Amino acid sequence: MTETTTEQLCARPPGRPRSERAEKAIIEATLDLLVEEAGVAGVSIEAVAARAGVGKTTIYRRWPNKEALIVDALATLKAPLPEPAGRSVREDLIALARAVHSGRGDRRVDCLWNIIGSWHKHPELVRKLRRDVIEPRREVMRGVLRRGIETGEVRPDLDIEVALPMIAGAMTMQVQGLAPDEDLPDDVAERVVDTALRGLAP
Amino acid sequence: MTETTTEQLCARPPGRPRSERAEKAIIEATLDLLVEEAGVAGVSIEAVAARAGVGKTTIYRRWPNKEALIVDALATLKAPLPEPAGRSVREDLIALARAVHSGRGDRRVDCLWNIIGSWHKHPELVRKLRRDVIEPRREVMRGVLRRGIETGEVRPDLDIEVALPMIAGAMTMQVQGLAPDEDLPDDVAERVVDTALRGLAP
Repeated sequence: MTETTTEQLCARPPGRPRSERAEKAIIEATLDLLVEEAGVAGVSIEAVAARAGVGKTTIYRRWPNKEALIVDALATLKAPLPEPAGRSVREDLIALARAVHSGRGDRRVDCLWNIIGSWHKHPELVRKLRRDVIEPRREVMRGVLRRGIETGEVRPDLDIEVALPMIAGAMTMQVQGLAPDEDLPDDVAERVVDTALRGLAP
Repeated sequence: MTETTTEQLCARPPGRPRSERAEKAIIEATLDLLVEEAGVAGVSIEAVAARAGVGKTTIYRRWPNKEALIVDALATLKAPLPEPAGRSVREDLIALARAVHSGRGDRRVDCLWNIIGSWHKHPELVRKLRRDVIEPRREVMRGVLRRGIETGEVRPDLDIEVALPMIAGAMTMQVQGLAPDEDLPDDVAERVVDTALRGLAP
């Protein structure tokens, strides 16, 4: 370990600069409000300022309106997906399917439902969500399937763009169908992936 | 055409009885409010009364609180699914998959997102939704797959409970990923069903 001198500590102020801390508090407050019952309608500059403990001008200096703020808050939702281990397509798909499940009750995931529920009024939010949150996740799964075609684990003529939402959708629907106090069976990701790999036909 | 006498008209009052009309207006107003931006939070007895053009007491006479009213409004969402033609599993699954797609923009379907977004606060609504809306739809698709096992179109060891959300989920995710002004490709239901039937593996 390198020894840290007092001089070094003083040269860089400890922690984050104040403006960065305020920005983080504003983003967190926006996500909190988005998750609450009323979704986009529950977010207002006033409510964000109160919850973040900042003045409204601090927000307006950075974002012209609540839509712009929500778009930036959504951009922070780029949660890292598990890095595919690359040993087998089945194993990697199961890990990715589990990641859908494990997001249950996560504020990030719950935000999405409330945004989707208001898409008629906020098409730009939906586009942003797709570009920044949904598409990077799809790209990871797409990579696994493409590799599977190379290794022969996946059939070469697979309709990848349909296979992706099949696995993610099956997991999402299972999660949606549950009440908040119910658990999914432990092996649901394995069952989804095995059924998808094998197909319904004999 | 049968001739209608004045006597017949007077014997039965035309249209629905007043209480039934009021009830319908109340339910419709509740669904309207649920679809709007704020979901469950946007529904209040006051707002429903104003939109339905009835007094609050008319509502309270029938429903003790807004949750009970929402549950009853959701129960009216049991939209009929297309009756499976029974010629082939593939054809029936495509018709059912299309029904998921065709619900896009439908008030009934859009209600569901707003309910799902508030499930932490309203677990009873989610249970009701599952029992009255999701489960009957699953049962139709389950019947198609069971028949397919009998006819040999579906493999006998299929994990039906996983296959159901795979098809419905793939359609739902395709719809979700779109902005409101974008259209799905015409053949998406066929592609989903064919990919599900054949599976991802070679």
